[in-house]
Amino acid sequence: METGDLGNRESQIGRRKSEAPIGVFDSGVGGLTVFRAIERRLPNESLIYLGDTARIPYGVRSESTVQRYALECANFVRSRGVKAIVIACNTASALAADYLRSKLSLPLMGVIRAGARRAVDATKNGRIGVIATEATVLNGAYERAILEIRNGLEITSRPCPLFVPLAEEGWLDHQVTRSVAEEYLAELRSKVDTLVLGCTHYPILRPVIEQVMGDNVTYIDSGEAVADRLAAMLESEGLVCEGRELATEEFYVTDSASRFRRVAELFLGRPLEAVETVELGSF
Amino acid sequence: METGDLGNRESQIGRRKSEAPIGVFDSGVGGLTVFRAIERRLPNESLIYLGDTARIPYGVRSESTVQRYALECANFVRSRGVKAIVIACNTASALAADYLRSKLSLPLMGVIRAGARRAVDATKNGRIGVIATEATVLNGAYERAILEIRNGLEITSRPCPLFVPLAEEGWLDHQVTRSVAEEYLAELRSKVDTLVLGCTHYPILRPVIEQVMGDNVTYIDSGEAVADRLAAMLESEGLVCEGRELATEEFYVTDSASRFRRVAELFLGRPLEAVETVELGSF
Repeated sequence: METGDLGNRESQIGRRKSEAPIGVFDSGVGGLTVFRAIERRLPNESLIYLGDTARIPYGVRSESTVQRYALECANFVRSRGVKAIVIACNTASALAADYLRSKLSLPLMGVIRAGARRAVDATKNGRIGVIATEATVLNGAYERAILEIRNGLEITSRPCPLFVPLAEEGWLDHQVTRSVAEEYLAELRSKVDTLVLGCTHYPILRPVIEQVMGDNVTYIDSGEAVADRLAAMLESEGLVCEGRELATEEFYVTDSASRFRRVAELFLGRPLEAVETVELGSF
Repeated sequence: METGDLGNRESQIGRRKSEAPIGVFDSGVGGLTVFRAIERRLPNESLIYLGDTARIPYGVRSESTVQRYALECANFVRSRGVKAIVIACNTASALAADYLRSKLSLPLMGVIRAGARRAVDATKNGRIGVIATEATVLNGAYERAILEIRNGLEITSRPCPLFVPLAEEGWLDHQVTRSVAEEYLAELRSKVDTLVLGCTHYPILRPVIEQVMGDNVTYIDSGEAVADRLAAMLESEGLVCEGRELATEEFYVTDSASRFRRVAELFLGRPLEAVETVELGSF
């Protein structure tokens, strides 16, 4: 059951394809910023979120392992009858998007290409900054994606390893977070006119990042970028769901739901009702 | 090859058992503080370090998974002909020490029981603080180990999730780290007379922790505690290596060696020569 559209059975039988949900998966909780961006951009759509919390972080795994994990995630959300899949995880977007496209016949998009395209459109001085985890910076995925779209741009990448634990700690408006941001962003501040928030956790630190970087910078939230691309795709494929009253949300994790729920509230700004723990690999 | 002492073949053939190395394993780089403590306490001994960096962090895995991983680590160091094994990882010590003892016939000790015993010996007012990762605090391993030794002690545990990334960032003498420590340790400061550094990363932040907590506290470094217990065990078993000129060191990881090497220098205070990447599971 690696290809084909068996997973859409439910939508074909029980409801129209446009009413099928959109599947969003990530290695953990960070992808909820992408989920939130999609929810805001497309409030009529039903959404399914899967956080592969048992196997986080993907950033330290090999390419073939990430591809296998991503396929298991994609197959799970596909088994729920989704009409499209968003890879909210930067590592999985970088290493597994093309692989998943070769395996699945569903529309599928990742955060990296969407963010890169928006950054290229935004820059005026040709100097783009990328802040991300160490793994994403070392992998060079944003840099490659940006240069594929327009060669010759100057890209400065900066790993910000403390931002994820600070975000998960909930220190969003905290002097420590401001001090860390000042240290991390010092070089970028005087240089770039566009800054890619290249890690799904970073949008919740955006107020602090904006304080430090200032008003003359365009901030690229890859979640917002992928939500816009998703909206355009649904429109062009005739897959837009019309009635808001049909919109539902489901949350799944692969490990304990309690820690996910606590951090998720920080990320979504509201409590989550039900979070279900599932085992992957059998879908 | 799950039990027996096949792994000691080398020592039996090529050298005396007392000259065989000691194996130390951890889920990553943090166990190097334990390694360093053993190296200082027992400078004549040869040491082998294994960091299971491909599968870090153990803290989010289930008990049976941690036991399987720990057995693979132990079997690897055993295959190098060690005379004793130290589990430097808190999670593996908590979840897998008894399991490994049932599978292996080698002397084996973990950091948790050693640290707990020393804390019980140190406290005068009966109030012990434990700082650790969220996983270790939730698991309650130190608390259980301390209360097993002496019931009725008052234990206050505090997760300090930013300490690991701050240590790995190398911000050992940094205002941000001091601010974080002040926030984390505020409640413990006025309460406990003994503080267990319940995560292998924390000893390298000890100067900052001491600044914040003050002089009236006894700090328990589980690495130093296990090094002392190891020394006593080698002595009583007649396994002490006599000549310092025989002492060698080997480092192994299960993922990329480059990041390990960089952080390892911070932890050991000196560059590492050779770090070899190995695949586990076949030993």
